[in-house]
Amino acid sequence: MKIVVDAYGGDNAPEEIVKGAVQALGERDGFSVVLVGKREEIEKLLAENGADATRVEVVDARDVITNDMSPTEAVRKMRDSSLVKAFGVLNSDPEAQAIVSAGSSGAVLTGAMLLVKRIEGVTRAALAPVLPTVKGGLVTLVDCGANSDCKAAQLVQFARLGSAMVTATSGNPSPRIGLLSNGTEDKKGNELTKEAFALLKEESSLNFLGNMEAREILSGDYDVIVSDGFSGNIALKACEGTALAFLSILKKSILAGGLRAKLGYLLMKPVFKEVKKTMDYNGYGGAVLLGLSKVVVKSHGSSKAKSIAASVIQAFTVASSGMLTSLDLR
Amino acid sequence: MKIVVDAYGGDNAPEEIVKGAVQALGERDGFSVVLVGKREEIEKLLAENGADATRVEVVDARDVITNDMSPTEAVRKMRDSSLVKAFGVLNSDPEAQAIVSAGSSGAVLTGAMLLVKRIEGVTRAALAPVLPTVKGGLVTLVDCGANSDCKAAQLVQFARLGSAMVTATSGNPSPRIGLLSNGTEDKKGNELTKEAFALLKEESSLNFLGNMEAREILSGDYDVIVSDGFSGNIALKACEGTALAFLSILKKSILAGGLRAKLGYLLMKPVFKEVKKTMDYNGYGGAVLLGLSKVVVKSHGSSKAKSIAASVIQAFTVASSGMLTSLDLR
Repeated sequence: MKIVVDAYGGDNAPEEIVKGAVQALGERDGFSVVLVGKREEIEKLLAENGADATRVEVVDARDVITNDMSPTEAVRKMRDSSLVKAFGVLNSDPEAQAIVSAGSSGAVLTGAMLLVKRIEGVTRAALAPVLPTVKGGLVTLVDCGANSDCKAAQLVQFARLGSAMVTATSGNPSPRIGLLSNGTEDKKGNELTKEAFALLKEESSLNFLGNMEAREILSGDYDVIVSDGFSGNIALKACEGTALAFLSILKKSILAGGLRAKLGYLLMKPVFKEVKKTMDYNGYGGAVLLGLSKVVVKSHGSSKAKSIAASVIQAFTVASSGMLTSLDLR
Repeated sequence: MKIVVDAYGGDNAPEEIVKGAVQALGERDGFSVVLVGKREEIEKLLAENGADATRVEVVDARDVITNDMSPTEAVRKMRDSSLVKAFGVLNSDPEAQAIVSAGSSGAVLTGAMLLVKRIEGVTRAALAPVLPTVKGGLVTLVDCGANSDCKAAQLVQFARLGSAMVTATSGNPSPRIGLLSNGTEDKKGNELTKEAFALLKEESSLNFLGNMEAREILSGDYDVIVSDGFSGNIALKACEGTALAFLSILKKSILAGGLRAKLGYLLMKPVFKEVKKTMDYNGYGGAVLLGLSKVVVKSHGSSKAKSIAASVIQAFTVASSGMLTSLDLR
């Protein structure tokens, strides 16, 4: 199996992307990578990082899609960009089963929607990032931004897709599913979630636990959290923002706290490192775009090698499980 | 002016509620409080806390509405509950300008909607909590749960009400308003926010900055954040949940970190206290229910005396500014 990697997507491209792809090869067998971008630069980086040449291909692409471009226009017109060419490899090479990009979210989403076939029966693909929980496990949010306005039936599809992905990546045969709402009671919600709640209750193949509040996202009590892409995006970014705010206030207080605080900080450094490691979702891979016949993983724009390596392995795990592509959602 | 206080609402009623009301009287002049609930118990607590008898009234009520009751039924039927009687005082005593309750959110919201007159032109009241930001200021979120499904015109009302409240409480003549969305670009959003965006752009009396992401809620770059009650509730609770998750992971890491970590923690204790103080929104009062002709403040159910005192002072500040009641929203 081949995993296609957009070597020129993201803030730290191409250095960290190539390094991450090489790391992934070192960590796991059973696949090779196709790096797409400026050939001579990629080959130089591959040599520097001691890549195993038998497991790497390079496909040349001269352009780069940036965050400030209109995604639809960029994907349509920039045929020689690393992203569009990477999607081209995914479509034309039967061994290519997955793609990883840390490039512009809009362009990756648009490219996936326009250039990758959906699973039969799926109305819209959904973006599913994976977050760490306080209990040490992971939670998958579907959708986090691909669909700003949804119908209730789509939310049911998101639940089935998310559940299948968790089973594929963790082996959990019956992922616990929560519907993101403004309260835990059955009657809570807006018009959309009330309708989705009723539909989800009927799905006997799903382990649907009912409504849940955003307070519980990181609790570890759910494996899959279902929402429309607008609310999911707000939930995800509110979590991110609060974690950053916490660190910022902590830092300010340490600086204002004099010698005692600084000494305490030095002693606690391994603790903070541990907390950061637990809360750093970069270590768990990227967001998978669910509902497509091939696996598309969007890594964070600021991804470093470690995060890219995790995304490549995640793409390989999902693709090789075969679950997502064999799903019947008609 | 009188501030009516539901002495039997909340997890720590009546002890912390009465204590908080007495504290507020000690901190600020210009108002008296009307405590509603079991007379003999309240009077005992007032004596214990050394209350100034000339600034306190007690109105007897024998029942208590609890969280497990249906809000609408409770408000309709429990005429002798502390909450319904408190709303009664608010309506019948012309000096009573505000009410504070830490009781069941549903019952306080329902009571306010059914029993308090709306400002002319306001379609629906909105719940507006105040959160601390990393820059040391505050941010007001409207709506955070009173309206699960909204129209774009309502979001504009929320912006005007929120802006007026910030001006009333902080003196800021031109509060910076953001529209909660799934991206910062003008075109981002769902159908509702796109329509609201266009309307808000037309409101020359408002300092509307445009779309903002949930990542920026605590950034200090906005004074008022506008959203429908469903999304606002998710944003608020995601922030709360992440802060709690952070503390939980930190605690676990300290316990696992041995003597060094524990010593570091002891040295850093004042820092953590400072962080907790900054992030603890209880110190800033409760959520104001905007759009009503009298001021309704919903305090957190777990409120202690300090938080009740802050809510009473907040209620007094908003009510005495006169801004909310003089707003013309027709």
